[in-house]
Amino acid sequence: MDQERLQRQMSFVLELDKEKEIFRQNYLADGSRKENDAEHAWHMALMAILLKEYANEPVDVLKTVTMILLHDVVEIDAGDTYAYGETTKAEQHAREAEAADRLFGMLPEDQGRELRSLWDEFEEMKTPEARFARTLDNIQPAMLNKASGGKSWIEHEVKLSKVLKRNSYTGNGSKTLWDYSRENIIMEAVAQGKIIDDTGNDGDTAYDVQHP
Amino acid sequence: MDQERLQRQMSFVLELDKEKEIFRQNYLADGSRKENDAEHAWHMALMAILLKEYANEPVDVLKTVTMILLHDVVEIDAGDTYAYGETTKAEQHAREAEAADRLFGMLPEDQGRELRSLWDEFEEMKTPEARFARTLDNIQPAMLNKASGGKSWIEHEVKLSKVLKRNSYTGNGSKTLWDYSRENIIMEAVAQGKIIDDTGNDGDTAYDVQHP
Repeated sequence: MDQERLQRQMSFVLELDKEKEIFRQNYLADGSRKENDAEHAWHMALMAILLKEYANEPVDVLKTVTMILLHDVVEIDAGDTYAYGETTKAEQHAREAEAADRLFGMLPEDQGRELRSLWDEFEEMKTPEARFARTLDNIQPAMLNKASGGKSWIEHEVKLSKVLKRNSYTGNGSKTLWDYSRENIIMEAVAQGKIIDDTGNDGDTAYDVQHP
Repeated sequence: MDQERLQRQMSFVLELDKEKEIFRQNYLADGSRKENDAEHAWHMALMAILLKEYANEPVDVLKTVTMILLHDVVEIDAGDTYAYGETTKAEQHAREAEAADRLFGMLPEDQGRELRSLWDEFEEMKTPEARFARTLDNIQPAMLNKASGGKSWIEHEVKLSKVLKRNSYTGNGSKTLWDYSRENIIMEAVAQGKIIDDTGNDGDTAYDVQHP
């Protein structure tokens, strides 16, 4: 038994606990409080398992789930960046890369390297697993937003153009799930005035969304 | 596209959100509040991935992780039962089986059957995956309890004999992790008076724990 190896792994495991205190902008379905990163990752991981049949391309489910469980770990140091906030992408990326160095650096070298590479893969969205994980990363909070009566969309006066821009790659992981989310979540919230329609449409939103 | 199938899956996915409001008896590492079931499952799932090399027998990691992510879902209906509480095992099991019927019954039949069977497997502890998942289910809260200064052990005046009884099968999934937990977590808490030593030992606790 390599006690130092196990000790490093257990230190990382304990450090993970901090992710339960990083709160996101979206609320739980009942609107009672905001969701934290650990809950979000757990929910997404189960979605990957339950909805894998809808991925555009076959995915390695364990790889997808591992990526999902770890994708927000950098926020332990870098904090949550709101999807419709003002921080520049470059600033956010620099903070997160530094956090990844520190956190994955806590692990035994082989394991840290492997998980860091999975985290990079999620960020780069170049593999079927990363694309599918990203799809879920967008659909999960949209689903909760709808369930809570659009609470965080209303609070942030979110506009349809921004939602569509943020979702420009959601269909790359699963066309089926993006179609579902667009029709049953986003456009319903627009119809109810919870997302502001600033697209200057003629009202044929289904057409306009598909041809932005 | 089978819209009814997807709709049933999405209803189950939304229902899962309630697991974030089932609070456990143990605290987060910093003692600031109790942990909920979704956070606990997320933490355990990452532990399975990070610590799989210590399983007594080779495990299918995706199966273990799926089992872990779902293992407390029944508490949405049945509530959390404290490890050292007074509810009888039979009462608890009956409540949980009813919850499993309702919850897994929300899914398309093939998927509900598959996940229900995984949940049963976890309960029965008869496979390497179920045994390893159980090991983590015991070690994760013990680790947090220690980190929080033994807060929930102290609150419940927990006795060593009960901790050892509850952990009687922890080594069945991973002898290495049980040895680690016993030496670095449990016996340290005993030494610090956070777990009450009621075993009437001669003080050679390492011996007594191994030969209770």
